[in-house]
Amino acid sequence: MDRSTEEAQTKEMDIRSLSSSHHHSQSERYIHKVGVPPKQNLFKEFRETLKETFFADDPLRPFKDRSRSQKFILGIQTIFPIFEWGRKYNLKKLRGDLIAGLTIASLCIPQDIGYAKLANLDPQYGLYSSFVPPLIYAFMGSSRDIAIGPVAVVSLLLGTMLQNELDPINEKAQYQRLAFTATFFAGITQVTLGFFRLGFLIDFLSHAAIVGFMGGAAVTIALQQLKGFLGIKKFTKKSDIISVMHSVVASAHHGWNWQTIAIGASFLSFLLFAKFIGKKNKKFFWVPAIAPLISVILSTFFVYITRADKQGVQIVKNIKKGINPSSVNEIYFSGDYLLKGFRIGVVAGMIGLTEAIAIGRTFAAMKDYQLDGNKEMVALGAMNVVGSMTSCYVATGSFSRSAVNFMAGCETAVSNIIMSCVVFLTLEFITPLFKYTPNAILASIIINAVIGLIDIGAATLLWKIDKFDFVACMGAFFGVVFSSVEIGLLIAVSISFAKILLQVTRPRTAILGKVPRTTVYRNIQQYPEATKVPGVLIVRVDSAIYFSNSNYVKERILRWLEDEEEEVKAATYQPRIQFLIVEMSPVTDIDTSGIHALEGLHRSLEKREVQKSGDVVAPQLILANPGPVVMDKLHASSFTSLIGEDNIFLTVADAVSSCAPKLVEEQP
Amino acid sequence: MDRSTEEAQTKEMDIRSLSSSHHHSQSERYIHKVGVPPKQNLFKEFRETLKETFFADDPLRPFKDRSRSQKFILGIQTIFPIFEWGRKYNLKKLRGDLIAGLTIASLCIPQDIGYAKLANLDPQYGLYSSFVPPLIYAFMGSSRDIAIGPVAVVSLLLGTMLQNELDPINEKAQYQRLAFTATFFAGITQVTLGFFRLGFLIDFLSHAAIVGFMGGAAVTIALQQLKGFLGIKKFTKKSDIISVMHSVVASAHHGWNWQTIAIGASFLSFLLFAKFIGKKNKKFFWVPAIAPLISVILSTFFVYITRADKQGVQIVKNIKKGINPSSVNEIYFSGDYLLKGFRIGVVAGMIGLTEAIAIGRTFAAMKDYQLDGNKEMVALGAMNVVGSMTSCYVATGSFSRSAVNFMAGCETAVSNIIMSCVVFLTLEFITPLFKYTPNAILASIIINAVIGLIDIGAATLLWKIDKFDFVACMGAFFGVVFSSVEIGLLIAVSISFAKILLQVTRPRTAILGKVPRTTVYRNIQQYPEATKVPGVLIVRVDSAIYFSNSNYVKERILRWLEDEEEEVKAATYQPRIQFLIVEMSPVTDIDTSGIHALEGLHRSLEKREVQKSGDVVAPQLILANPGPVVMDKLHASSFTSLIGEDNIFLTVADAVSSCAPKLVEEQP
Repeated sequence: MDRSTEEAQTKEMDIRSLSSSHHHSQSERYIHKVGVPPKQNLFKEFRETLKETFFADDPLRPFKDRSRSQKFILGIQTIFPIFEWGRKYNLKKLRGDLIAGLTIASLCIPQDIGYAKLANLDPQYGLYSSFVPPLIYAFMGSSRDIAIGPVAVVSLLLGTMLQNELDPINEKAQYQRLAFTATFFAGITQVTLGFFRLGFLIDFLSHAAIVGFMGGAAVTIALQQLKGFLGIKKFTKKSDIISVMHSVVASAHHGWNWQTIAIGASFLSFLLFAKFIGKKNKKFFWVPAIAPLISVILSTFFVYITRADKQGVQIVKNIKKGINPSSVNEIYFSGDYLLKGFRIGVVAGMIGLTEAIAIGRTFAAMKDYQLDGNKEMVALGAMNVVGSMTSCYVATGSFSRSAVNFMAGCETAVSNIIMSCVVFLTLEFITPLFKYTPNAILASIIINAVIGLIDIGAATLLWKIDKFDFVACMGAFFGVVFSSVEIGLLIAVSISFAKILLQVTRPRTAILGKVPRTTVYRNIQQYPEATKVPGVLIVRVDSAIYFSNSNYVKERILRWLEDEEEEVKAATYQPRIQFLIVEMSPVTDIDTSGIHALEGLHRSLEKREVQKSGDVVAPQLILANPGPVVMDKLHASSFTSLIGEDNIFLTVADAVSSCAPKLVEEQP
Repeated sequence: MDRSTEEAQTKEMDIRSLSSSHHHSQSERYIHKVGVPPKQNLFKEFRETLKETFFADDPLRPFKDRSRSQKFILGIQTIFPIFEWGRKYNLKKLRGDLIAGLTIASLCIPQDIGYAKLANLDPQYGLYSSFVPPLIYAFMGSSRDIAIGPVAVVSLLLGTMLQNELDPINEKAQYQRLAFTATFFAGITQVTLGFFRLGFLIDFLSHAAIVGFMGGAAVTIALQQLKGFLGIKKFTKKSDIISVMHSVVASAHHGWNWQTIAIGASFLSFLLFAKFIGKKNKKFFWVPAIAPLISVILSTFFVYITRADKQGVQIVKNIKKGINPSSVNEIYFSGDYLLKGFRIGVVAGMIGLTEAIAIGRTFAAMKDYQLDGNKEMVALGAMNVVGSMTSCYVATGSFSRSAVNFMAGCETAVSNIIMSCVVFLTLEFITPLFKYTPNAILASIIINAVIGLIDIGAATLLWKIDKFDFVACMGAFFGVVFSSVEIGLLIAVSISFAKILLQVTRPRTAILGKVPRTTVYRNIQQYPEATKVPGVLIVRVDSAIYFSNSNYVKERILRWLEDEEEEVKAATYQPRIQFLIVEMSPVTDIDTSGIHALEGLHRSLEKREVQKSGDVVAPQLILANPGPVVMDKLHASSFTSLIGEDNIFLTVADAVSSCAPKLVEEQP
């Protein structure tokens, strides 16, 4: 008895709370039907999906409505953008490019020699890789700011992976051949990805994973430099921090060379100070840029005069004079090493791409020009293929040198040509002078260069914004530092994928309530002032409903319903749930499993019994605002007729206001 | 001159079209701030994510607030549900279970003998697998309708994969040992997935892929039966359609046995007729259920009387009498075959799970009870582990027998116990009677059984609803039929994953317009009557913005903007775009890459110049309705202060009405 009076009261409350909106809907709002988009031609639909996936940027647009000769010229310009921007080239631009080219050349020469060592190759190979690839890139690439050449992370990665297959000292010839083979396949991978417009694949390495991976690689590289920096002769071949520290500590008593340390430490301080000056005042960007070359010159001169190499200070000794010899015949095109080279090349090529594209995009955004990622990949790939035939190893865009290039005022890829020319002159005439350059200086230069890759600010931001991203970042970082670059990379990729899979398996759902004084329904967790409508449960599903989440979505909605009904039972003044409104706005797509789940939901609801004016009825499933694709599929599967066309509304507000009179009926 | 007058006209139009909604907003609508959810405790947030991912169904809920002894009993009941439902068991239920159990036993005995052959095992192993596993399942499983035992697809898969490693005839002993090893690891896989609550992993095999895979496997199995059905002695070991048809045609002249064909064809017609009767009238479901056993009895008797085996009709010959011997010592726990068994076991275990869980869910939905997928996996796994030690091979839920079980009115898993008892009696007493059973009958029974797995209706529906799903289905089907079950499975899984990746890389975006006589903004493709607001571009992004799609989303929005501006230029009566409203309702989450993309978008807009009352201004980025998670992260990254808090609105309508006065200002 007590219960029934309460129920009556409840219903009165309902009427009060709902009648206004109900009234409103009749007088002012016109209830729209949910549109079913016009049936599309199957072929057209397919073509559009294909276009959106692979040709999202519509690369053929400029070719439209042109004559054949114009198309030919456009085609040449597309493959070799230099013929496009070259026509507008002038002396003013050359001035900028000349300064920038000379600056990055002075920076790249000492770095190249050091990076070649990271790849376990002779120093000249680093210089070779700064001669041919930048030339090719200048003709084919479309970034104006990128500086091409060997980079620290790819060198380390390549060195580590090649070392797993062959010994760089005892099997030197094969090791070099495998390096060229890997470079060849890195280029082929890059061209293939670009040509088949699969460039989006590199987007699967998340920003967070890259930050962690780069930071870890930087720490690993810096640790490796302790060998040259401390003058240790017996050093571990492993790259993890534990092995390295063990090597360092074990040789502390008799393996360190104080002269080496003195030279290394003083020049490292000089380099760091130069970097500090450059950061302090952007005008002095050239100070850190030329500091490495100055260090090399000073220290070489110093060693030559003092003959410190006789005191145990290790020196570069010999760099082969002359430009790149051909290496076409050295690439393994058959046999066991073909496959190994291929595997290493694919990984190195992908990482190279990731770095180059990130740089290209960053600077393109700064100067506001468009960069076609896929075209860029073809250019980078072509340059590595040519490089592999001219004794170069994998080259890509360098973060640090590109930044210097940008700040030095480069205008076009001509700065790369200038750099390439300087490297050519170096190879032809200056290399013998590097004989007395101490290894410690190269170590200092590399340490100084890779410090910039450790981006603590970015990691802090990740922590602040997204904890999961932070975990991915740290996973990659510690994977590289404590195990190896490959393991770190694997962790980075796995975590990135796990995140995507988690997103599609466990989409968010939310209970909506009415925001006061509006007809808007929003997540009651975000808007605590939003109120639930009595007798109606409004759930929003925040993802496409696919096979991977359809069961979860169904069960989650039923769980919301159960929770709600328990609450209703506890608070007896509320009516039981009679309408389940599913807000479908975020449900952009649905597949057959998803439709099965909705059917299952409908059937489960039918089995639930609700008292309504004496009769026993089940809660009604109502959909609000399904999108065009979803609506199309619901129609095709006749789900719409299963729940009734009337139960699909344009907005939640419409749906609620159409429930209202039915709730009112309940009044005895 | 002409241009400026047109512009003036345009602006007047704007005022007219917008002033009404603007007015409306001031008089009636109260502009709400977008809520920032209260900052959550990090640990709590993490725990909730974990819970939603792995314990979405809250399995520990009943344990709350119980005494220790109650918890113990509940724990036992959780692991062995028989102790829960067993207490309410009564004679009425037994009657249902008895009939169902006898029916499925009569169906399973001939099927088991045939399926064992698919796995290249002796016939008794099929019967063994219908004795122990159903008993274990009855104690631990929670489905009331599933019928446990060997099934066609898993038998074929196991047979194919084992055959790749060992020859089933010449290396019979090792082959059997490897089969038990694979079964053991199939069970371990299932228990592990269930225990670590990774059950959602099987959801990654999409419904479409399963339909195709099952259909393909059914065709392959049916083709394999041509050997027994036509009495061919020399038959290919490969399972692809081309090899099989080649074998069949090559032996057409002298390899076929007409007596065998006569027996097989007549009983196949009988079985198909029985199936037809069962389909026609649901009352006669028992006709197709007992038809196989009747066929076996009749044909065995016939062969025994006519001694047709002397005419070349192949017979079963010997089935070992007696129940399962122990096989604990036969499992490879070390050596080369451990790894092979493990690999095969993981695949067979996953497919077995997929089938059993699908069956369990289907019947649970029909009778409206809940099924805990993870608990179910533990039960299935335990039964296979025990099975592997008692000479069984991988058992799971059978589609056809479960349907019969359901229709025969089973009430609980006791029907499995009844079936198990009948199999026990068969093994102990009746097996010698199977000696004269012709292989052709077994072939007919298997063909008849697997025909049901070819679901043309489902494939047609896939075509109608989702073309991509249909491609996945056909890919799996043709992969199995033309290559092998493994390749088909690989294709099915790959296509399923590709779909997920496509979804997250290329999310949909849509241009919104105002639906007439409402304040609702919807996709103008779906609602052609919706009109764009002049000077404002409203874009909706239909997915979370993650690293995998952030670049695409940014570039897509800029492309919409360019397209729109071109249109504006063409039709000179429209004002240029001054506001870009991004509707964020479907954007459920964003990561650091996503925020970078939004920042990039903001920066690109700043670089675009728009004439506005003499000054040159850039289009303004406005966000509408970002969700709680997104809002939280936008705040954390101070993106909100970058674009200005005022430029984030609760709804598109609010955003538009706040743009309106600014557009009005433009009037000269």
